[in-house]
Amino acid sequence: MFISFEGIDFCGKSTQVRKLREYFESLGKKVIIIREPGGTPISEKIRDILLDKKNSGMMNETEILLFSASRAQLVREEILPQLKEGNIVISDRFFDSTTAYQGYGRGIDTHFVKTINAFAVGEAVPAVTFFLDLPIEEMIKRQSNQKNTLDRMELSTREFFENVRRGYLEIATTDKRFVVIDATKSVEDIHQIIISHIA
Amino acid sequence: MFISFEGIDFCGKSTQVRKLREYFESLGKKVIIIREPGGTPISEKIRDILLDKKNSGMMNETEILLFSASRAQLVREEILPQLKEGNIVISDRFFDSTTAYQGYGRGIDTHFVKTINAFAVGEAVPAVTFFLDLPIEEMIKRQSNQKNTLDRMELSTREFFENVRRGYLEIATTDKRFVVIDATKSVEDIHQIIISHIA
Repeated sequence: MFISFEGIDFCGKSTQVRKLREYFESLGKKVIIIREPGGTPISEKIRDILLDKKNSGMMNETEILLFSASRAQLVREEILPQLKEGNIVISDRFFDSTTAYQGYGRGIDTHFVKTINAFAVGEAVPAVTFFLDLPIEEMIKRQSNQKNTLDRMELSTREFFENVRRGYLEIATTDKRFVVIDATKSVEDIHQIIISHIA
Repeated sequence: MFISFEGIDFCGKSTQVRKLREYFESLGKKVIIIREPGGTPISEKIRDILLDKKNSGMMNETEILLFSASRAQLVREEILPQLKEGNIVISDRFFDSTTAYQGYGRGIDTHFVKTINAFAVGEAVPAVTFFLDLPIEEMIKRQSNQKNTLDRMELSTREFFENVRRGYLEIATTDKRFVVIDATKSVEDIHQIIISHIA
């Protein structure tokens, strides 16, 4: 089974990924956690370029090609072999991030985004995608509470994140794979909603 | 004016690029030389990933996306602004390399190669492309004479380079931009052929 988590930064994806892993492991399943961009030695080098604040002059076209390159490697080197082994793969972000961030956020042509996403992932399409929906107001509040400095993507404008969120909500209207969850709910409530969908 | 040079490794492109630059400079023109992959700080980081022999597990899909990412940045950060200034831009490799190496060499679907090339370069299409055609026999001979170790791309198989060369020759049959030059001719002969075309 292949499951992905989506949402804007600070929506609580990583916490839910961890809790879902623990749930599966308590049932005796083997779970592989994947983080995007990254997850293989080559993909991690691409991640470094993508998130480095020094690369603020990166063009939108370069950005979508780099995210897709990182994903193409991750799918073939890690995700597909793990699924073939019968393991559960949970990905913290996957190709819907490219539709939302590079398509709706950066304004890259929707048709091209679909083409490049299909090329990058091949047959590796998640069975279910949990979208943790957070208002931008709340993202900014959570952002200001964190100690770490923000990376290149997180440093984007408020308008950008509004467009990204709108993108996710539009995907949700057309793609049955998408489960929209109110990310302002408690960690435990969200976890229970996820578990009930998995069951 | 935007001019590109193409050909398999060791065909003598770099020497001809240098001589053409000297020719233009002797006429008082400003010339910018570009090398692919690379040519901007972000593109050079992508080049390091592409050519590093340690990355021998790179997937074909990752490779074409990385070459295109490097090119997308180079076009928008360097080539288009230089052309707008009225300068001459000479590129040692450009998008025909992707058609030949990733399309014909690696077997990536031709339609996708066209789509991603168009996305990466936008309006930056060379006015003329000099293809220095070298038999693979001769490439191997020249390869064995060089002192430096080969990079990840140069370490490809003979069959791969046969396909790349066939790819270039097929582009030449359909694209009027392409000027095919026998790369076994002398450096000076090749330079004269190039100059006569430019004139």
